[in-house]
Amino acid sequence: MKTVYLDYAAATPIDPGVQAAMRPYHAVKFYNPSAIYLAAKHVSDDLQTARALVAAVLGARPANITFTAGGTEANNLALKGVLYEHPATHAVTTALEHDSVRAPLAFMAGHGWSYTEVAPRPDGIIDPAKITEAVTERTVLVSVMYANNEIGTIQPLRQVAAQLEIIRRYRRKAGNTRPLYLHTDACQAANYLDLHASRLGVDMMTLNGGKIYGPKQSGVLYTANHVKLTPLIHGGGQEAGLRSGTENVAGAIGFAHALKLAQTLKSTESKRLKTLQQQFLDLLLEQVPTAQLNGSLRHRLPNNLHITIPGADNERLLFALDGQGIQCAAGSACSASKAEVSHCLQAIGLTDKAARSSLRFSMGRGTTIQDVRRAAQVLATVVAS
Amino acid sequence: MKTVYLDYAAATPIDPGVQAAMRPYHAVKFYNPSAIYLAAKHVSDDLQTARALVAAVLGARPANITFTAGGTEANNLALKGVLYEHPATHAVTTALEHDSVRAPLAFMAGHGWSYTEVAPRPDGIIDPAKITEAVTERTVLVSVMYANNEIGTIQPLRQVAAQLEIIRRYRRKAGNTRPLYLHTDACQAANYLDLHASRLGVDMMTLNGGKIYGPKQSGVLYTANHVKLTPLIHGGGQEAGLRSGTENVAGAIGFAHALKLAQTLKSTESKRLKTLQQQFLDLLLEQVPTAQLNGSLRHRLPNNLHITIPGADNERLLFALDGQGIQCAAGSACSASKAEVSHCLQAIGLTDKAARSSLRFSMGRGTTIQDVRRAAQVLATVVAS
Repeated sequence: MKTVYLDYAAATPIDPGVQAAMRPYHAVKFYNPSAIYLAAKHVSDDLQTARALVAAVLGARPANITFTAGGTEANNLALKGVLYEHPATHAVTTALEHDSVRAPLAFMAGHGWSYTEVAPRPDGIIDPAKITEAVTERTVLVSVMYANNEIGTIQPLRQVAAQLEIIRRYRRKAGNTRPLYLHTDACQAANYLDLHASRLGVDMMTLNGGKIYGPKQSGVLYTANHVKLTPLIHGGGQEAGLRSGTENVAGAIGFAHALKLAQTLKSTESKRLKTLQQQFLDLLLEQVPTAQLNGSLRHRLPNNLHITIPGADNERLLFALDGQGIQCAAGSACSASKAEVSHCLQAIGLTDKAARSSLRFSMGRGTTIQDVRRAAQVLATVVAS
Repeated sequence: MKTVYLDYAAATPIDPGVQAAMRPYHAVKFYNPSAIYLAAKHVSDDLQTARALVAAVLGARPANITFTAGGTEANNLALKGVLYEHPATHAVTTALEHDSVRAPLAFMAGHGWSYTEVAPRPDGIIDPAKITEAVTERTVLVSVMYANNEIGTIQPLRQVAAQLEIIRRYRRKAGNTRPLYLHTDACQAANYLDLHASRLGVDMMTLNGGKIYGPKQSGVLYTANHVKLTPLIHGGGQEAGLRSGTENVAGAIGFAHALKLAQTLKSTESKRLKTLQQQFLDLLLEQVPTAQLNGSLRHRLPNNLHITIPGADNERLLFALDGQGIQCAAGSACSASKAEVSHCLQAIGLTDKAARSSLRFSMGRGTTIQDVRRAAQVLATVVAS
């Protein structure tokens, strides 16, 4: 039985070209980039080339790029890193964020900081005005994800950035010297959307290699020149002191190649998947007429469909689909192994019952029209059974 | 020109068997271990098997093993993790520790905690009595490295553990309910020494894949059942909540295989290198009669030689050696790129001038008698030139 993998939002296979780019660094160019001999300097140069490659995609300079061990670490570094610099301040975020944004903020809230979660509209889009309304005099940080990991909705980052800039100008006049940084978790967006930091108006951006056909636990935090962070991991001072530890050379190089490839494929893959998305949705609604799409279709990643099938039990469906070779998800993989109802679905107004009747299909480079046809057919069968 | 690599303490090539063990997880078994379908469960099972493999080497249970992104992160998690649980307490460490122990403690010292650094004897060995003398009523943590990364000296961990146990018993009687954990950074020790946690008497232990012919930025923190830590990286709750982020499956599996192999080869490699170490030392002293060995030869890793050549400039020597195909180090790779004098060499009483006349040779699986002969000869030439 051929397997149809529709969980690209949870994990992507490493691209063969990316694997090839990483391979020399396992046992040949294995040197510690901090060592003094020429062979090690070459490895250090290769690492800097990778950093420059990432910087170029983001319209940034190499010094703005910190390699981390994944998106979760990058989100933690961004949020705690800023908050530790500004004791007892406030952050604004959305009710749609990934746990790697929510959990650090919740942790900091237990240690003298506070934060406000802005609810999305029922279509899964955040109203920028709601963000600015939540900003107080003590706010130093706003974190709004670029695209949601469960329902795939794309947030109006540029508008959020523009509104924050107005507040910043006002603040300066009023003598409030606190920063007001905009961070975005772009882990799910990186395959399909523009990542140019200044076009987006963000001060910090998180990227994750494991979602862009690169290695797991490779990641990047972009920080604009003016952002100052307290490191989470202290030591030998690698990554300009922001992330100590002998560099994951193969991982960083793999990440850079994966990001470059993703951005090269961005427009063709986006177009291809947008078509496939509409076909898949049409097929799903045809095969399972009661199904409802969650989140805006228009402002949505081209690879994501998230549906509720009223009355269905998604756990039963997932097992039945898997039994027929269809691999998909109930929501984020992180919470899949827990019994919790998705905070994201609750935020867009789904009842617990509806949330437990929901499925996420996330497509990727390997997904074909045959795959989505088969998935829709099998889904109809298992829903009926 | 054949290159002689004598910097295994800085980085090791990934073993071919370890690479082979990792390979399936790049693009075939690439699933997110938290996903719900069977193929992902298999990946999760493989990750747990890796965890059990590591646990077995340490005489521990899988629940005692946290996979981290390297030794530096594991040291940070151990130290900050304990201190955050106990506000305004005290730690004891040694003046020989790696920056990934020193820097986190220095950071915490700026945030309400304090620590004492115990000086070693001139032979680079820590007197256990000095450790216990430094313990105060407020001490919750003692961190003593197993073997030093610069001079290779092995610390009397068991004796330190035995003395701490006396204090613990006394404390309980006196009603002091604070813990007194013993942590060890075993990154350099893992190829050659016993890692059985309860035989060593440690409560926490740090291991690093990049030093044991495994992948860079793979690592483990062992924690005994009774140890409670505050995580540094919050999110999806992976690694029992201690280290969130989609697991580096290939890295963890590579780490486990590397550790198992290292412990399998431990006694034969230790014997082989002990012989080679003596031969190398004899050759060095024959070729460069003014050279002096730093640190105890008896209580020393079998792969390390660290010498001072009075009057020499180690930077000049390193470049000249590299020009002749000999790759070695001045001290730790982390500090190689900085202009600082080694804190470790200062701690054993070397003057700054002597420290700047010192070289570290660290051998490994690929090192032969021909290699060390050649290194000694070339060193004699470049010292004389």
